[in-house]
Amino acid sequence: MHPGIVGRATIRWRGGERRPVIDSVAEEVPVAMLYNGTPFSVMMTTPSDLEDFALGFSMSERLIQHASEFLGVEIRPCIEGIELYMRVSSTAPAASLSAAAARLLPGRSGCGLCGARQLEDVMRMTPPIESPSTFPVASLRLALASLGGMQPMNAIAGSTHAAAWVEPDGQISLVREDVGRHNALDKLAGAMRRQSLSTDAGLLLISSRASYEMVSKAAHAGMAVVAAVSAPTALAIDLAKAAGICLVGFARHDGFNVYSHPERLLGFEADNRIY
Amino acid sequence: MHPGIVGRATIRWRGGERRPVIDSVAEEVPVAMLYNGTPFSVMMTTPSDLEDFALGFSMSERLIQHASEFLGVEIRPCIEGIELYMRVSSTAPAASLSAAAARLLPGRSGCGLCGARQLEDVMRMTPPIESPSTFPVASLRLALASLGGMQPMNAIAGSTHAAAWVEPDGQISLVREDVGRHNALDKLAGAMRRQSLSTDAGLLLISSRASYEMVSKAAHAGMAVVAAVSAPTALAIDLAKAAGICLVGFARHDGFNVYSHPERLLGFEADNRIY
Repeated sequence: MHPGIVGRATIRWRGGERRPVIDSVAEEVPVAMLYNGTPFSVMMTTPSDLEDFALGFSMSERLIQHASEFLGVEIRPCIEGIELYMRVSSTAPAASLSAAAARLLPGRSGCGLCGARQLEDVMRMTPPIESPSTFPVASLRLALASLGGMQPMNAIAGSTHAAAWVEPDGQISLVREDVGRHNALDKLAGAMRRQSLSTDAGLLLISSRASYEMVSKAAHAGMAVVAAVSAPTALAIDLAKAAGICLVGFARHDGFNVYSHPERLLGFEADNRIY
Repeated sequence: MHPGIVGRATIRWRGGERRPVIDSVAEEVPVAMLYNGTPFSVMMTTPSDLEDFALGFSMSERLIQHASEFLGVEIRPCIEGIELYMRVSSTAPAASLSAAAARLLPGRSGCGLCGARQLEDVMRMTPPIESPSTFPVASLRLALASLGGMQPMNAIAGSTHAAAWVEPDGQISLVREDVGRHNALDKLAGAMRRQSLSTDAGLLLISSRASYEMVSKAAHAGMAVVAAVSAPTALAIDLAKAAGICLVGFARHDGFNVYSHPERLLGFEADNRIY
């Protein structure tokens, strides 16, 4: 298989038929960036071309002034992810990082993961969702048909993601938009809380891909069923399984894939469970 | 106009015709998050529903344990962006942030902006690109036709972005993929440097949207012509103008929009300059 791609069991639903398949999904791995032994940040990254990433990241983050200051990188796989041990010359800005001063790298998206400097800090413990919440497949299809009409910003500008809350009858009760998908989800969670809307029954529908951090935010907000219009990452699937979340990917009017906890989708109880 | 959307002058190219129009684009604004006066992080955000964002962000980042600890937010526009002054109760984790300990929020994407805790730290100074580099429109169309076939990960998994370097003759010489578009660009810049490829002549083609940070990384790498398959943000356009970059958005086989420095696109010299 191609580097950066792994297989995950899924149930593919097309044209009224369910079929268990192994889906190929992109890896998303915490990659710790260390300069001369000092941890700088953790980036969520597809683990391919990591030598290129090490040098390019160092340049664009102004941690080296010139490529000649980059002396080499050692790639060390570990349990939590991958560590990139980079050596830089003493003239490089990265050489004067102290553990305390290391700039915690930040996200344009509010994700909160890569700020961790050490791999152990990355994985957030979210207790699994205990609620027996389920959601009807027919209502998901209804919501998918109306989502586009409820994204006013995206209709005008074409560059925003939406996070929507779908009631069990398929009605979308709330939508928030943002250039960052994580921000859109934070806005939705905040709006629901401000309006005293419960996340006990319903479905989170996102117009984007499902990354690890999107599933983590959903878990923290107690959302048990999550559907993404685009693809999930492997780590998002693994977290959804552990967190008790039913994760639906490639949610389209004519079909979708279910990556975890299909028992939460009503009208979709698989005869042939592969989980 | 809808909140979060602003107008930007552009030249629309369709079916062999050029037309100056005002395009509606999403805003992307540095939003500083402060808790009881202590700066925590800066997030790049579409400035709509900011009360929702303040509460949702505080919950999902575990800065409050319960919504009742969130006492209110004041939205203060300032020159560099927007400051969200949030008040939290003394029991909230956010109340015990010290300026030194504040977790610099991090990015899943390697962007590097939101790690800044203060708005003044956000805008990176990149000297404008002086090079007279230009690129033929016909070569951009050629590259667009071949990009899909050169994204092996995306063809398999459907969740990765690509950053590609296009030679003046339209040949794509290098592609890198990642679940994060910023990572894909860092990988490409690193790979070009490792292979001693110059950014003096050619075009950066990205399969994603063009955010502020993507244009910032391109500017730092000396890439004078940037084409994005999807939409740009307003801030990305503003930076491209200042940095001397020709920014093309919605780059498709049948047309595209040019948001800045159209003089760098050969075969596209507008008679009717609107810049």
